[in-house]
Amino acid sequence: MAAHADFSGVIPPVVTPLTADRELDRASLKRSIDRMIDRGVHGLFLLGSSSEVVFCTDSRRREIVETGIEAAAGRVPVLVGVIDAQTERMVEHARAARELGADAVVATAPFYALGGPDEIEANFRAIREEVDLPLFAYDLPVCVHKKLDADMLVGLGSEGVLAGVKDSSGDDVNFRFLVQKNRAAGSPLKLFTGHEVVVDGAFLSGADGVVPGLGNVDPYGYVQQYKAYREGDWDAVAQIQDRLALLMTITSVTEGAVGFGAGVGAFKTALQLLGVFETNQMPRPVRALEGGNVEAVRNVLVAAGMLAR
Amino acid sequence: MAAHADFSGVIPPVVTPLTADRELDRASLKRSIDRMIDRGVHGLFLLGSSSEVVFCTDSRRREIVETGIEAAAGRVPVLVGVIDAQTERMVEHARAARELGADAVVATAPFYALGGPDEIEANFRAIREEVDLPLFAYDLPVCVHKKLDADMLVGLGSEGVLAGVKDSSGDDVNFRFLVQKNRAAGSPLKLFTGHEVVVDGAFLSGADGVVPGLGNVDPYGYVQQYKAYREGDWDAVAQIQDRLALLMTITSVTEGAVGFGAGVGAFKTALQLLGVFETNQMPRPVRALEGGNVEAVRNVLVAAGMLAR
Amino acid sequence: MAAHADFSGVIPPVVTPLTADRELDRASLKRSIDRMIDRGVHGLFLLGSSSEVVFCTDSRRREIVETGIEAAAGRVPVLVGVIDAQTERMVEHARAARELGADAVVATAPFYALGGPDEIEANFRAIREEVDLPLFAYDLPVCVHKKLDADMLVGLGSEGVLAGVKDSSGDDVNFRFLVQKNRAAGSPLKLFTGHEVVVDGAFLSGADGVVPGLGNVDPYGYVQQYKAYREGDWDAVAQIQDRLALLMTITSVTEGAVGFGAGVGAFKTALQLLGVFETNQMPRPVRALEGGNVEAVRNVLVAAGMLAR
Amino acid sequence: MAAHADFSGVIPPVVTPLTADRELDRASLKRSIDRMIDRGVHGLFLLGSSSEVVFCTDSRRREIVETGIEAAAGRVPVLVGVIDAQTERMVEHARAARELGADAVVATAPFYALGGPDEIEANFRAIREEVDLPLFAYDLPVCVHKKLDADMLVGLGSEGVLAGVKDSSGDDVNFRFLVQKNRAAGSPLKLFTGHEVVVDGAFLSGADGVVPGLGNVDPYGYVQQYKAYREGDWDAVAQIQDRLALLMTITSVTEGAVGFGAGVGAFKTALQLLGVFETNQMPRPVRALEGGNVEAVRNVLVAAGMLAR
Repeated sequence: MAAHADFSGVIPPVVTPLTADRELDRASLKRSIDRMIDRGVHGLFLLGSSSEVVFCTDSRRREIVETGIEAAAGRVPVLVGVIDAQTERMVEHARAARELGADAVVATAPFYALGGPDEIEANFRAIREEVDLPLFAYDLPVCVHKKLDADMLVGLGSEGVLAGVKDSSGDDVNFRFLVQKNRAAGSPLKLFTGHEVVVDGAFLSGADGVVPGLGNVDPYGYVQQYKAYREGDWDAVAQIQDRLALLMTITSVTEGAVGFGAGVGAFKTALQLLGVFETNQMPRPVRALEGGNVEAVRNVLVAAGMLAR
Repeated sequence: MAAHADFSGVIPPVVTPLTADRELDRASLKRSIDRMIDRGVHGLFLLGSSSEVVFCTDSRRREIVETGIEAAAGRVPVLVGVIDAQTERMVEHARAARELGADAVVATAPFYALGGPDEIEANFRAIREEVDLPLFAYDLPVCVHKKLDADMLVGLGSEGVLAGVKDSSGDDVNFRFLVQKNRAAGSPLKLFTGHEVVVDGAFLSGADGVVPGLGNVDPYGYVQQYKAYREGDWDAVAQIQDRLALLMTITSVTEGAVGFGAGVGAFKTALQLLGVFETNQMPRPVRALEGGNVEAVRNVLVAAGMLAR
Repeated sequence: MAAHADFSGVIPPVVTPLTADRELDRASLKRSIDRMIDRGVHGLFLLGSSSEVVFCTDSRRREIVETGIEAAAGRVPVLVGVIDAQTERMVEHARAARELGADAVVATAPFYALGGPDEIEANFRAIREEVDLPLFAYDLPVCVHKKLDADMLVGLGSEGVLAGVKDSSGDDVNFRFLVQKNRAAGSPLKLFTGHEVVVDGAFLSGADGVVPGLGNVDPYGYVQQYKAYREGDWDAVAQIQDRLALLMTITSVTEGAVGFGAGVGAFKTALQLLGVFETNQMPRPVRALEGGNVEAVRNVLVAAGMLAR
Repeated sequence: MAAHADFSGVIPPVVTPLTADRELDRASLKRSIDRMIDRGVHGLFLLGSSSEVVFCTDSRRREIVETGIEAAAGRVPVLVGVIDAQTERMVEHARAARELGADAVVATAPFYALGGPDEIEANFRAIREEVDLPLFAYDLPVCVHKKLDADMLVGLGSEGVLAGVKDSSGDDVNFRFLVQKNRAAGSPLKLFTGHEVVVDGAFLSGADGVVPGLGNVDPYGYVQQYKAYREGDWDAVAQIQDRLALLMTITSVTEGAVGFGAGVGAFKTALQLLGVFETNQMPRPVRALEGGNVEAVRNVLVAAGMLAR
């Protein structure tokens, strides 16, 4: 198992390739993971939102984790999402992740049933008590409809309940304050931004790393940006970001698709166009991009220098 | 299996009793179901939000359905919730429900992963295609963060995909229009309100029935109200409603608890005070009501004539 | 000035007719007010949201109040909205309303600048202290983005700060509790629903009256419904409501218009088709309905028996 | 009048000092403006949200603009907010601003009455047609409850309707895309961030300037940060930001106050403690900070090196 200190840098949430009939495409998954590791990513996050975790049956979750950890082959640490509506299911998923060799687990606040801050804190405590693995809190209000409180996060970090945070809240003001509060507490938490488009700002704020869905499509770009960050070359950090922001428009140039279908749909389509995935198939009830939408994604890849045309 | 026409009247979402160590309290569950059927309810809804469906592991779901259907013993139809974040899991739950003898299944729109109206419609179609049972749509924006469109619902009713709707949206204007659109289409849908406090208004709008969480505490009240509705005795409908609204304040007189903990927490506490449940235990990470909060619930029960003191 | 006890029954928010070049059409305004009073309404509410209050310059506000009060000619009490973003402006508007002869004023919570419950309560107190007229609180979260708390409202009623509430929140559960709390406090408040489509439910809950924008189009319908309510003829109450709900679809049958443009735009178009208004002109920056949208409104009027075709 | 090209750099929204009895404190306003100009700010924004624009009567608005423009004395350009619920009032305010010598006006989308993108665009067009001054769009969803669309903004820039944007949306991803779209269109718009805490990120994205409320308290800090930005000294940009983020906690260390009362209340309190304002009085219905809250603000000022204690 990787030591705690290893969690930093670029850790893409691994997009899950499907066959045309919606089976897991293990070969494409391994190809994509090899490609990301070859380009220098510092870790992998399986079963995040971009991995379509909530679309998975339990057996599909297991299949993805087994395949992903086998493909990683110890080269980088593997974090596994245990996302589900409430605590008992998250505990079940965390136990399964540990059995399969995960290096850490990642949990959101409970969702669907309405609760308050006490339930959120109790949820993280319960998972950590039941499963002895580093635990990351995943802050994703757009899906969970709760914002994680910075003081609670740092407090749980100081107690050893949490090892880090993936902040996909888009609330960069709060992220700055989170970094400052964590620093004042002796930096118990590793702090990751879930941004793709303003990662440079999060690095200026002092992020330890980034978990970019777009890193499946262009892992090298994010690795180079992180390297420039560590070297203090801010002009390079921003220039690379500008190119990656352009690339991110694959998620907005399409028509008709929304939310997950537009975002992860575009990632899968790009990975197919790049020869990494066999299909851009999506899980039920989401439709894969097709026709003009695929061409729109292709045009962005060409403009961003990812495809010769 | 009960025929489609049977779905009407008072169908409480069955609150799930736990033992102190959070096992299913089968004896209390049977006692509560017997009590509700004895007082005249027209059906039961297992594994709804009030049944703590999203707090359940799969084995707990199964345990509740088995116990509930056994307790109902064919006296009233049993609807089973298949609520989960996305389609494949809902299909798994629906298959299990059919195997265990459910008379109908109840599904929400997909949640957590962001989607649009196309995914919502596709979700209901997929479940219905996979599992041959009457399917009810459950409209619960406060948890699902989507409002179901009335035209879509009536359209799916006309096609035979949906058998009915449980509307817990609190949007009574839309419910009125839903009733009118359903009537104009030949009434393919059975329309239930999830209200507890303004059920009388939903009856004036033309609801076929009600699915009140509070009906676990006072099933007789809702049954009497429904009877008065069918007899056109509106003064009685409203008077009973006023008493039930008073009783519903068990969910707001407590301090510190919020959301599910305050609502279902109060139902469980009342059922314990009434001698139906052994405990008012709640699923992790929610805390049971205690001390002054229990007394506050008791005072309301006394004021509403449910307890002698 | 009308006594406090007079505030009950049907009090439409008066829609403001404009000329083609967006001047106030005084003749049409008088005609519409005469028509409503002839059909039996119990009061008028000038400068509500439906009166386009926030679209008005101060001189336009004054012009509407002068014309409206002159047209009412003491036959029914006239309430005047003093809606603006914050307290000082509301006080200015309230002073102007008193000078012009208003019988009561109507204020929302402050908006735009973010505040909390203390500011909301202080706002109502400040207006009442500065201007000696009955003050109604207007609960309209869709515009104001705050829900007024029932306990605060009843408390301010008991102190004599508030004379009543217009509840356009759409939260019928809270309205039921507001009625019950008001009753328990000795009924200091007159409670009006702002519903058009489920007024019958609000009457079952015990509302003192209704402030329906649609009452500009069909005042007689709402007056007849209120009469049936007072006589306890609930079948008539609901049947009239069903027809009025159908009529309300003038606000949803159009295409392209949204919000105020769709709602008040449809009211103005209907009033033009009925010969009450000269135009259906809207204030800048809103466009009037035209072409197929006017025909769509006409078709509903015909279906609802308001036009012979 | 200052030329268009002058709008860049640090342009604080000028906080409005009041006397104890809530009159405008002209002497303090002049002192604060002199202090900001002496420390190098590049412009002033009167009657923004932080200037309590929506709390002002029309005569108070005029008084603030007259005093502010007189105090600026042509040393820096002065932008004037014309914020109101709808178009006609915004036009009135814009005319008054031009008469009083404003260099530009700043408008939000219409609010309170619900509208759509067509009304937003028409609103900006109407103001620009009526008043010949550079027009800035102010994107403040937390108050206006609408997000301005980047494509619309750049389109209106290309047509000459808009001269720039103040983006206080907190949506940094969208801001990055806005910068890129503006650049692709030939940079018709000057783009300002309304951030205080992550201005460094906005500068990396390519912002032309910043409109920080906190710049009233520490104008020199923001001026130094902007200078470092222009010199490409990113380490300094981020270090200054870290100190300013600490200073910004004056808005969160207090208890009981919320929203405007906590934010602008803390700015006024800090300015009083620094000897710039005579009082920290707030407009009705907001209460000024007092007691322990004043001490909490003082402690932050000391920690941030603004006060010796």
